[in-house]
Amino acid sequence: MHDQLRKAVCDANIQLPRHNLVIYSWGNVSGIDRSAGVVAIKPSGVAYDDLTPGKIVLLDLDGNKLNGELNPSSDTPTHLELYRNFAGIGGVCHTHSPAATAWAQACREIPCFGTTHADFYYGPVPLTEVMTEQAIKTDYELNTGKAIVKRFADLDPAQFPAVLVANHGPFTWGKDASAALESMVVLEKTAEMALATITINPKQGPITKALLDKHYLRKHGENAYYGQKT
Amino acid sequence: MHDQLRKAVCDANIQLPRHNLVIYSWGNVSGIDRSAGVVAIKPSGVAYDDLTPGKIVLLDLDGNKLNGELNPSSDTPTHLELYRNFAGIGGVCHTHSPAATAWAQACREIPCFGTTHADFYYGPVPLTEVMTEQAIKTDYELNTGKAIVKRFADLDPAQFPAVLVANHGPFTWGKDASAALESMVVLEKTAEMALATITINPKQGPITKALLDKHYLRKHGENAYYGQKT
Amino acid sequence: MHDQLRKAVCDANIQLPRHNLVIYSWGNVSGIDRSAGVVAIKPSGVAYDDLTPGKIVLLDLDGNKLNGELNPSSDTPTHLELYRNFAGIGGVCHTHSPAATAWAQACREIPCFGTTHADFYYGPVPLTEVMTEQAIKTDYELNTGKAIVKRFADLDPAQFPAVLVANHGPFTWGKDASAALESMVVLEKTAEMALATITINPKQGPITKALLDKHYLRKHGENAYYGQKT
Amino acid sequence: MHDQLRKAVCDANIQLPRHNLVIYSWGNVSGIDRSAGVVAIKPSGVAYDDLTPGKIVLLDLDGNKLNGELNPSSDTPTHLELYRNFAGIGGVCHTHSPAATAWAQACREIPCFGTTHADFYYGPVPLTEVMTEQAIKTDYELNTGKAIVKRFADLDPAQFPAVLVANHGPFTWGKDASAALESMVVLEKTAEMALATITINPKQGPITKALLDKHYLRKHGENAYYGQKT
Repeated sequence: MHDQLRKAVCDANIQLPRHNLVIYSWGNVSGIDRSAGVVAIKPSGVAYDDLTPGKIVLLDLDGNKLNGELNPSSDTPTHLELYRNFAGIGGVCHTHSPAATAWAQACREIPCFGTTHADFYYGPVPLTEVMTEQAIKTDYELNTGKAIVKRFADLDPAQFPAVLVANHGPFTWGKDASAALESMVVLEKTAEMALATITINPKQGPITKALLDKHYLRKHGENAYYGQKT
Repeated sequence: MHDQLRKAVCDANIQLPRHNLVIYSWGNVSGIDRSAGVVAIKPSGVAYDDLTPGKIVLLDLDGNKLNGELNPSSDTPTHLELYRNFAGIGGVCHTHSPAATAWAQACREIPCFGTTHADFYYGPVPLTEVMTEQAIKTDYELNTGKAIVKRFADLDPAQFPAVLVANHGPFTWGKDASAALESMVVLEKTAEMALATITINPKQGPITKALLDKHYLRKHGENAYYGQKT
Repeated sequence: MHDQLRKAVCDANIQLPRHNLVIYSWGNVSGIDRSAGVVAIKPSGVAYDDLTPGKIVLLDLDGNKLNGELNPSSDTPTHLELYRNFAGIGGVCHTHSPAATAWAQACREIPCFGTTHADFYYGPVPLTEVMTEQAIKTDYELNTGKAIVKRFADLDPAQFPAVLVANHGPFTWGKDASAALESMVVLEKTAEMALATITINPKQGPITKALLDKHYLRKHGENAYYGQKT
Repeated sequence: MHDQLRKAVCDANIQLPRHNLVIYSWGNVSGIDRSAGVVAIKPSGVAYDDLTPGKIVLLDLDGNKLNGELNPSSDTPTHLELYRNFAGIGGVCHTHSPAATAWAQACREIPCFGTTHADFYYGPVPLTEVMTEQAIKTDYELNTGKAIVKRFADLDPAQFPAVLVANHGPFTWGKDASAALESMVVLEKTAEMALATITINPKQGPITKALLDKHYLRKHGENAYYGQKT
């Protein structure tokens, strides 16, 4: 049942430590089958080395578990809130990767300092508001998702496939689990470079709108010309 | 004699260089059998590659050696002082891991900047007082342990399984040798992220009490809901 | 057809991730056969693991494709502009390597802080001007090359086999594809050390002209005495 | 002829890239047979992968070559000056390891910030004076050695087995080639930690004399009690 989805989600989770994005079980990737309304996600607290497609937890979009005995990731309500609100996404990734988490902990957006960033994000990587005490105490993981959705009121999730949750860390997404993972790898590298950039020049500002447009749009949208025609 | 304890302590020591926590012989892990009152610890100055369970040194809680000819780690009196005072711990780890040691050398507690930290430590990672000349000159390693115990007068070692010894480096602990090692791995990653956080925003303050409670208590204590019921 | 050139260019591209200079397809190396006027370059968006000499794209110096169906790197017009203007070079490399890119993003030349730098570059690693909106909107990649050539109006490309494109990242070159790659490896290491240098001492100035001359000229030029006579 | 010495020196050189101290041929280790007055050193510009004991160059203390056709390292006159002046040393190592080189480029001694440092160096890692134009232009490599020897006028090379040459990088030494290499590994790690320490607390001062004495002397000298009696 949903074997392909579970295998894809399992594979993406197993890649997390290989990209130095996580230690122990500090991250999770999910994927969704939109036609069936089924989400597949890592079980909570299970080591990546022990993951198999059969251990991947299946749920509906309301969070009802559809299989097995393992608990899903404690971050599941955040993932589900993103799937419910960002219709175009097919995979979500959450980690505590060091550089992106440092920006989230510093409560700073990642400015678009260069073309590496502009190739993937159409502006600064957004940061959520600090959560209120009330939002933390009740339905915390769901409210984390709501904070992200609120931040995207005027942003297109397709143009910004990443967010920093203040005091916490990054979530990324894409067309499937593998793309969500790739967005996390890119975010971490971008965050590392941005940290080094402000170390060299603390007053450095973002690139121009013209350069941002050029790089983002040569890879994304109808006039893209990067890569091979497929 | 105490074969399992020695094997567990040997294994945890061998893991130290694999987690990039030590070079040469810059660290040691111990474990205790509380019912027998026996502590097992790495021999002093022996390379990790050469360690075998048979080379692990056994001592009673007063430091009397129970086996073999190898000297125990020169840090043994510190380990013993922790076992004598922190009744709930079963393993202790000491390293000079780079980021945690940098905080210890900078004589700064590690503030709780985010949920990564809050998942493991119920507040800032504490720092001992700088030791007096007298405490250094006589029974230095024992006094290092006393400085840690003094710092924990109002702290629960179960809620803070790590400390920074000022001008020196970290000690961590847990329910056994393996858990003490894991706490060291977590501390080093937390210290790296905290360093990057203050590089991005030197004025960043700690997270709120509500967020600290939420993350610490969802993994620890009777209402924890992270991971699998076991 | 041009099998050796294609193999050399393929090999240099495959080395990029092994030197931690790129992730995904974030970089490209080219080489030129000057007598035939043929440039060989990486195809756009193809993973390094999938590269074979047969997939390397051949072009003339005006950018006309001479073989196959794969598109060349989107940075090809920059490479070609360098070959057309720097008569002595036989290979070009472009990456988004983290430290060199950070200097480019910070819009700072890399000062010559030490002999490591002076062994390879006869002064600071130059930085291009920020590109105008007009230059970005039309023939962007060609204009990137023109910005580099303009910056070298009074510099000898043989003495400075590297440049930082402002807001973007590094280009390097050499006598062939392999030498261009080596210059990128050296640049990245030099950029890392320079970043650490200004972290330790933000006011550090460059080395003296005498020391620069000594180190650069003991490895380069007619009186060089480093290495083996060949 | 001097097979053991050549093998030991070859082995130490081969270890340099494995400890991430060098790329390409950016470092060299030598050793001396004091009774024979013979120094063995890496040939200049040869890749570590290509080194064999037979390629190691032998010289007398005046720099006269005793074997083969390969040129010795261009840094040979510096090594020889150290052997002539520091009677107790049996091996010398020179690299451009990133963190130690950054301190040398920043023209700063490495303060003794903690016990990691105090376990190996009996105070701050010393820095040479910036060399004069005259000293650079004539017999540069010899004068580099003289600058080191001058800096040690009031220091014991056995208590400080490392130096930073201003604007250049580190030299280390020990009782043989292997010990010189180990001192370089320790120096690089110490330099990394010191860099992180001042990033956290730019005003951090050195540890007390009492703590320095305790740690240095528990590992060195007649009352040492670290390690195993041998």
